[in-house]
Amino acid sequence: MPKIFLPRSDIEFVEEGKGLAPKFDKHGLIPAVVTDNKTNELLMHGYMNKEALELTIKEGIAHYWSRSRKKLWKKGATSGMTQIVKDIFIDDDQDAIWIKVEVQGLGASCHVGYRSCFYRSIQSHNGKISLKFEEKTKVFDPEEVYSGSENPTQL
Amino acid sequence: MPKIFLPRSDIEFVEEGKGLAPKFDKHGLIPAVVTDNKTNELLMHGYMNKEALELTIKEGIAHYWSRSRKKLWKKGATSGMTQIVKDIFIDDDQDAIWIKVEVQGLGASCHVGYRSCFYRSIQSHNGKISLKFEEKTKVFDPEEVYSGSENPTQL
Repeated sequence: MPKIFLPRSDIEFVEEGKGLAPKFDKHGLIPAVVTDNKTNELLMHGYMNKEALELTIKEGIAHYWSRSRKKLWKKGATSGMTQIVKDIFIDDDQDAIWIKVEVQGLGASCHVGYRSCFYRSIQSHNGKISLKFEEKTKVFDPEEVYSGSENPTQL
Repeated sequence: MPKIFLPRSDIEFVEEGKGLAPKFDKHGLIPAVVTDNKTNELLMHGYMNKEALELTIKEGIAHYWSRSRKKLWKKGATSGMTQIVKDIFIDDDQDAIWIKVEVQGLGASCHVGYRSCFYRSIQSHNGKISLKFEEKTKVFDPEEVYSGSENPTQL
């Protein structure tokens, strides 16, 4: 694939220019924030390498780098819940991506079975901290959908 | 401060439990997605260390770790544009935070002067990639507000 990323020549170009010059970290990754195009809900936080970002831009389907599986990951390849990209943004210093997506299939983005990966809020009462489930029921049963696959969560 | 973070004992506890057991990376950081409580707009993508996350939870005001300045950063300390936290969420494997905030002062979150750090979209037409300014005017003049401070953007 031809190179679509420009050199980060100077700060003014990065912050105020019209050229795409993303910053990939030492592991070759850039974080990606994923929201629902219609509800604006935050669905997930992932990472892209150069190839994933290029595919996401060119094909309009979200691709990520799976840090646990250590491979390119076309979201929804197993579950059918692919993410169609409606808009892509980049931030001021070009080290974070935001994509607005329309989720296909059952419409969930979380491997645990919830619609959003952010299904729990953090509650603080009188110094006691706990998590509260904001999504009450799962959209799908991960054991059915991902049967035989390893859980990507790492401790 | 007493410890408020629990050990990441097993995957079920991390994914399905009610205990806060965030994963900080090798640099001691966890990414934080920041959206506007009313408009749901994505405002910024930052990082928190343990202290910043604890202060954010306990005080209800967003704190980050500034990777460029290498110090705890109470957002808005210079500009007055503090972020009042309305809700905090954590994701499935507890390695990303989402905060919904109400921005004080002039209501902007981007050091370049825009409301959101994500003021440019990525456009792709016939293989040509460019950035489009989605915010047309700055909310404030960064040279006035941050006079004498170093730009945090790094190449």
